[in-house]
Amino acid sequence: MDCIFCKIVEGTIPSKKVFENEHVIAFHDIQPAANVHTLIIPKKHIADMNGVEEADLFLIGEIHRAAQQIAREQGVSESGYRLVNNCGKDSGQVVFHLHYHLLGGEKLGALNSK
Amino acid sequence: MDCIFCKIVEGTIPSKKVFENEHVIAFHDIQPAANVHTLIIPKKHIADMNGVEEADLFLIGEIHRAAQQIAREQGVSESGYRLVNNCGKDSGQVVFHLHYHLLGGEKLGALNSK
Repeated sequence: MDCIFCKIVEGTIPSKKVFENEHVIAFHDIQPAANVHTLIIPKKHIADMNGVEEADLFLIGEIHRAAQQIAREQGVSESGYRLVNNCGKDSGQVVFHLHYHLLGGEKLGALNSK
Repeated sequence: MDCIFCKIVEGTIPSKKVFENEHVIAFHDIQPAANVHTLIIPKKHIADMNGVEEADLFLIGEIHRAAQQIAREQGVSESGYRLVNNCGKDSGQVVFHLHYHLLGGEKLGALNSK
Protein backbone atom coordinates (compact mmCIF):
# COMPACT_ATOMS: atom_id res chain seq x y z
CA MET A 1 0.00 0.00 0.00
CA ASP A 2 1.54 3.26 -1.09
CA CYS A 3 -0.07 5.47 1.57
CA ILE A 4 2.09 8.26 2.99
CA PHE A 5 0.13 8.34 6.26
CA CYS A 6 0.50 4.57 6.72
CA LYS A 7 4.24 5.11 6.32
CA ILE A 8 4.12 7.80 9.02
CA VAL A 9 2.27 5.32 11.25
CA GLU A 10 4.97 2.70 10.56
CA GLY A 11 7.71 5.31 11.10
CA THR A 12 9.28 4.80 7.67
CA ILE A 13 8.46 8.44 6.89
CA PRO A 14 9.38 10.87 9.68
CA SER A 15 6.87 13.22 11.27
CA LYS A 16 6.74 15.67 14.15
CA LYS A 17 4.52 13.60 16.38
CA VAL A 18 2.40 15.31 19.03
CA PHE A 19 0.24 12.36 20.12
CA GLU A 20 0.19 8.60 19.87
CA ASN A 21 -1.81 5.81 21.45
CA GLU A 22 -2.99 2.36 20.39
CA HIS A 23 -5.42 3.62 17.77
CA VAL A 24 -4.47 7.16 16.87
CA ILE A 25 -1.44 9.20 15.90
CA ALA A 26 -1.14 12.97 15.41
CA PHE A 27 1.60 15.10 13.91
CA HIS A 28 2.26 18.60 12.64
CA ASP A 29 1.06 19.35 9.11
CA ILE A 30 4.11 20.04 6.94
CA GLN A 31 2.25 22.85 5.18
CA PRO A 32 0.50 24.54 8.10
CA ALA A 33 -2.59 26.60 7.30
CA ALA A 34 -2.62 28.14 10.80
CA ASN A 35 -0.22 28.76 13.70
CA VAL A 36 -1.35 25.43 15.11
CA HIS A 37 -2.10 22.80 12.47
CA THR A 38 -2.05 19.19 13.56
CA LEU A 39 -3.25 16.15 11.63
CA ILE A 40 -4.99 13.44 13.63
CA ILE A 41 -5.36 10.05 11.97
CA PRO A 42 -6.40 6.51 12.86
CA LYS A 43 -3.54 4.01 12.58
CA LYS A 44 -5.90 1.80 10.61
CA HIS A 45 -5.99 2.67 6.93
CA ILE A 46 -9.41 4.04 6.04
CA ALA A 47 -9.47 6.08 2.84
CA ASP A 48 -12.04 8.65 3.85
CA MET A 49 -15.21 9.32 5.85
CA ASN A 50 -17.29 7.27 3.40
CA GLY A 51 -15.10 4.30 4.27
CA VAL A 52 -15.77 4.48 8.02
CA GLU A 53 -17.82 1.40 8.85
CA GLU A 54 -19.93 0.70 11.91
CA ALA A 55 -17.06 -1.12 13.62
CA ASP A 56 -14.74 1.86 13.01
CA LEU A 57 -17.00 4.47 14.59
CA PHE A 58 -15.21 4.19 17.94
CA LEU A 59 -12.08 5.43 16.13
CA ILE A 60 -13.88 8.69 15.43
CA GLY A 61 -14.43 9.03 19.17
CA GLU A 62 -10.76 8.20 19.80
CA ILE A 63 -9.69 10.85 17.31
CA HIS A 64 -11.83 13.44 19.08
CA ARG A 65 -10.53 12.47 22.50
CA ALA A 66 -7.02 12.92 21.11
CA ALA A 67 -8.08 16.29 19.65
CA GLN A 68 -9.18 17.54 23.07
CA GLN A 69 -5.82 16.59 24.57
CA ILE A 70 -3.80 18.01 21.68
CA ALA A 71 -5.76 21.28 21.86
CA ARG A 72 -4.86 21.56 25.54
CA GLU A 73 -1.21 20.69 24.95
CA GLN A 74 -0.89 23.09 22.02
CA GLY A 75 -2.44 25.84 24.15
CA VAL A 76 -5.54 26.43 22.01
CA SER A 77 -8.15 24.70 24.13
CA GLU A 78 -9.46 27.98 25.55
CA SER A 79 -8.59 30.36 22.70
CA GLY A 80 -10.43 28.10 20.25
CA TYR A 81 -9.80 25.59 17.51
CA ARG A 82 -11.40 24.00 14.47
CA LEU A 83 -11.59 20.34 13.54
CA VAL A 84 -12.00 19.61 9.85
CA ASN A 85 -12.46 16.40 7.93
CA ASN A 86 -12.33 16.59 4.16
CA CYS A 87 -13.88 13.78 2.17
CA GLY A 88 -13.51 13.54 -1.58
CA LYS A 89 -12.80 15.79 -4.52
CA ASP A 90 -14.92 18.88 -3.76
CA SER A 91 -13.47 19.09 -0.25
CA GLY A 92 -9.86 19.29 -1.36
CA GLN A 93 -8.87 15.98 0.30
CA VAL A 94 -5.33 15.23 -0.86
CA VAL A 95 -4.20 12.19 1.13
CA PHE A 96 -6.63 9.28 1.04
CA HIS A 97 -6.11 8.10 4.60
CA LEU A 98 -8.78 9.49 6.93
CA HIS A 99 -7.49 12.56 8.79
CA TYR A 100 -8.77 15.45 10.84
CA HIS A 101 -7.14 18.85 10.74
CA LEU A 102 -6.89 20.62 14.08
CA LEU A 103 -6.43 24.33 13.39
CA GLY A 104 -5.94 27.13 15.91
CA GLY A 105 -3.58 29.61 17.46
CA GLU A 106 -5.09 32.52 15.53
CA LYS A 107 -8.45 33.91 14.49
CA LEU A 108 -9.58 31.42 11.84
CA GLY A 109 -11.17 32.37 8.53
CA ALA A 110 -14.63 31.67 7.13
CA LEU A 111 -16.02 28.13 6.87
CA ASN A 112 -15.88 28.25 3.10
CA SER A 113 -13.94 31.06 1.50
CA LYS A 114 -14.85 31.86 -2.09
CA MET B 1 -31.66 27.23 29.21
CA ASP B 2 -31.73 29.78 26.46
CA CYS B 3 -30.13 27.68 23.74
CA ILE B 4 -31.46 28.09 20.20
CA PHE B 5 -30.39 24.56 19.18
CA CYS B 6 -32.10 23.03 22.24
CA LYS B 7 -35.24 24.82 21.09
CA ILE B 8 -34.81 23.32 17.62
CA VAL B 9 -34.46 19.88 19.26
CA GLU B 10 -37.66 20.53 21.25
CA GLY B 11 -39.41 21.86 18.14
CA THR B 12 -40.24 25.25 19.68
CA ILE B 13 -38.09 26.89 16.99
CA PRO B 14 -38.73 25.54 13.47
CA SER B 15 -36.01 24.09 11.28
CA LYS B 16 -35.71 22.33 7.96
CA LYS B 17 -34.86 18.91 9.32
CA VAL B 18 -32.94 16.44 7.20
CA PHE B 19 -32.20 13.76 9.80
CA GLU B 20 -33.38 12.70 13.23
CA ASN B 21 -32.84 9.70 15.46
CA GLU B 22 -32.70 9.09 19.20
CA HIS B 23 -29.45 11.00 19.75
CA VAL B 24 -28.93 13.30 16.80
CA ILE B 25 -30.78 15.86 14.74
CA ALA B 26 -29.68 17.65 11.56
CA PHE B 27 -31.13 20.61 9.71
CA HIS B 28 -30.27 23.13 7.01
CA ASP B 29 -28.13 26.07 8.11
CA ILE B 30 -30.21 29.24 7.75
CA GLN B 31 -27.17 31.10 6.41
CA PRO B 32 -25.65 28.51 4.08
CA ALA B 33 -21.95 28.86 3.29
CA ALA B 34 -22.18 26.29 0.47
CA ASN B 35 -24.81 24.76 -1.83
CA VAL B 36 -25.22 22.02 0.76
CA HIS B 37 -24.82 23.20 4.35
CA THR B 38 -26.34 21.07 7.06
CA LEU B 39 -25.83 21.33 10.82
CA ILE B 40 -25.62 18.06 12.75
CA ILE B 41 -26.05 18.26 16.50
CA PRO B 42 -26.50 15.94 19.48
CA LYS B 43 -29.88 16.31 21.16
CA LYS B 44 -28.04 16.52 24.46
CA HIS B 45 -26.85 20.00 25.28
CA ILE B 46 -23.05 20.10 25.20
CA ALA B 47 -21.59 23.58 24.78
CA ASP B 48 -18.61 22.68 22.65
CA MET B 49 -15.91 20.09 21.92
CA ASN B 50 -14.16 20.85 25.21
CA GLY B 51 -17.37 19.84 26.97
CA VAL B 52 -17.53 16.36 25.39
CA GLU B 53 -16.88 13.91 28.22
CA GLU B 54 -15.89 10.27 28.00
CA ALA B 55 -19.50 9.12 28.23
CA ASP B 56 -20.46 11.44 25.37
CA LEU B 57 -17.87 10.16 22.91
CA PHE B 58 -20.36 7.73 21.35
CA LEU B 59 -22.39 10.79 20.32
CA ILE B 60 -19.48 11.90 18.15
CA GLY B 61 -19.69 8.54 16.40
CA GLU B 62 -23.47 8.95 16.05
CA ILE B 63 -23.00 12.40 14.52
CA HIS B 64 -20.57 10.99 11.97
CA ARG B 65 -22.83 8.08 11.09
CA ALA B 66 -25.59 10.64 10.50
CA ALA B 67 -23.16 12.69 8.39
CA GLN B 68 -22.49 9.74 6.10
CA GLN B 69 -26.22 9.22 5.56
CA ILE B 70 -26.94 12.93 5.07
CA ALA B 71 -24.08 13.22 2.55
CA ARG B 72 -25.64 10.35 0.57
CA GLU B 73 -29.14 11.82 0.77
CA GLN B 74 -27.95 15.31 -0.18
CA GLY B 75 -26.10 13.85 -3.14
CA VAL B 76 -22.58 14.89 -2.08
CA SER B 77 -21.26 11.55 -0.88
CA GLU B 78 -19.28 10.97 -4.08
CA SER B 79 -18.61 14.56 -5.15
CA GLY B 80 -17.16 15.33 -1.73
CA TYR B 81 -17.97 17.12 1.51
CA ARG B 82 -16.35 18.71 4.53
CA LEU B 83 -17.21 18.23 8.18
CA VAL B 84 -16.27 21.11 10.48
CA ASN B 85 -16.52 21.55 14.21
CA ASN B 86 -15.73 24.98 15.59
CA CYS B 87 -14.81 25.25 19.25
CA GLY B 88 -14.43 28.61 20.95
CA LYS B 89 -13.65 32.18 20.06
CA ASP B 90 -10.83 31.83 17.50
CA SER B 91 -12.86 29.30 15.51
CA GLY B 92 -15.86 31.57 15.00
CA GLN B 93 -18.23 29.33 16.98
CA VAL B 94 -21.47 31.28 17.35
CA VAL B 95 -23.98 28.91 18.94
CA PHE B 96 -22.71 27.20 22.06
CA HIS B 97 -24.38 23.86 21.49
CA LEU B 98 -21.98 21.36 19.89
CA HIS B 99 -22.55 21.20 16.13
CA TYR B 100 -20.85 19.92 12.99
CA HIS B 101 -21.16 21.70 9.69
CA LEU B 102 -21.53 19.44 6.66
CA LEU B 103 -20.56 21.45 3.59
CA GLY B 104 -20.63 20.34 -0.04
CA GLY B 105 -22.30 20.60 -3.41
CA GLU B 106 -19.50 22.75 -4.79
CA LYS B 107 -15.72 23.02 -4.85
CA LEU B 108 -14.94 24.13 -1.29
CA GLY B 109 -12.44 26.85 -0.37
CA ALA B 110 -9.20 26.68 1.61
CA LEU B 111 -9.07 25.23 5.12
CA ASN B 112 -8.31 28.62 6.59
CA SER B 113 -8.78 31.62 4.36
CA LYS B 114 -6.85 34.73 5.36
